[in-house]
Amino acid sequence: MTKKAIILVSGGMDSLVTIAIAKQENAELYFLHANYGQKTQTKEQECFDNLVQYYHPKDTLTVDLTYLKQIGGTSLIDINQEIKDHNLNDSKSVPDTYVPFRNGNLIVIATSWAEVIGAQSIYIGAVEEDSSGYPDCRETFYQALNKAIDIGTKDETKIQIKTPIIHKTKAEIINIGKKLNAPFQFSWSCYRNNDYACGSCDSCFLRLKAFKKAGMKDPIPYQNDNH
Amino acid sequence: MTKKAIILVSGGMDSLVTIAIAKQENAELYFLHANYGQKTQTKEQECFDNLVQYYHPKDTLTVDLTYLKQIGGTSLIDINQEIKDHNLNDSKSVPDTYVPFRNGNLIVIATSWAEVIGAQSIYIGAVEEDSSGYPDCRETFYQALNKAIDIGTKDETKIQIKTPIIHKTKAEIINIGKKLNAPFQFSWSCYRNNDYACGSCDSCFLRLKAFKKAGMKDPIPYQNDNH
Repeated sequence: MTKKAIILVSGGMDSLVTIAIAKQENAELYFLHANYGQKTQTKEQECFDNLVQYYHPKDTLTVDLTYLKQIGGTSLIDINQEIKDHNLNDSKSVPDTYVPFRNGNLIVIATSWAEVIGAQSIYIGAVEEDSSGYPDCRETFYQALNKAIDIGTKDETKIQIKTPIIHKTKAEIINIGKKLNAPFQFSWSCYRNNDYACGSCDSCFLRLKAFKKAGMKDPIPYQNDNH
Repeated sequence: MTKKAIILVSGGMDSLVTIAIAKQENAELYFLHANYGQKTQTKEQECFDNLVQYYHPKDTLTVDLTYLKQIGGTSLIDINQEIKDHNLNDSKSVPDTYVPFRNGNLIVIATSWAEVIGAQSIYIGAVEEDSSGYPDCRETFYQALNKAIDIGTKDETKIQIKTPIIHKTKAEIINIGKKLNAPFQFSWSCYRNNDYACGSCDSCFLRLKAFKKAGMKDPIPYQNDNH
């Protein structure tokens, strides 16, 4: 049986490295990308298109989740809410860039697609510890969701959610990507900008710290060239 | 604390009666409706609009799930696949009107919305036994999904999935609706037509059998007036 995997590809460095890992483990890759009105939608779409050119998946699906914009409740989308500078010290609270249950939404869409094309795996580049503390990035969440998917799809449908980097640090993720020739120039992490990464939002902060720790220069352009 | 509930409102008789039940149990109702290119989308939207006029929910959300059409794999959407006449005897196989993991998709969208508006419950009119045998209508599926939602949302978010008619027969559902003055004229079950219900698809078959058993005339128009 051909090993087919759907990979959730946001265009960030975590999903990039997840593609590189999935490529080692599967014969056919399928890329799923979502636009939902996030402020860096244009850049993420561009990264996705570049990754499609680079990795040649068997098929792609770009979905428009306008409803997440309608629902709101997150500074990642709402133009009236500013993206704050990095502040991940208060680990008890969920940052306001959290898009309510977004990863739950992405996994179930991938499940519908997997059931139709007969993919056995869904890969997501969620990171639990060295990350922003979003509740939908916990490993126990994916385990529980996988159980629900087992019951809620046809009996012959067998889908496994794979989270290969969930317990890695961001620096470890970069090192894995380096080893697997992941094209970091085609990834984007900034929550704010589409041209030059701001260097100061939570996501840029985590990315820059990780590249520094991995001893590698981040190839994407930043507003402040000192990075 | 105000009891707020989101109800998944397809416009079918099961979701109609579920609204009537949720209304008894909650102070504020929120209606969620999905268009995904199903063949009777126009009629279902019309029923939804009428139900909004009738029940006056606090808010409504209509979402466009075009991706389910992109994904395909179901005769309920695909214009190249005919909807077959009723044939629910072979209970071992899932009918081709099954939209892969659709109810999973609907529940997670409702979860995102519930987390933002602070709704404590999500009602879905799924029916397990006296129905078409779709895997995403099993009670155990909703229980497992609820566990995943508990873990994958903020710690302070508490959402309960409610399936009040899951073990009812269709005739019992009609009787509950009758008692609660549910406006059956604003519901639609036919998989095929938007004007006169065909009377012969699985969904019409189940509906007509149930009205007959409940001793009530179905108020919607059918192609064949003998019903």
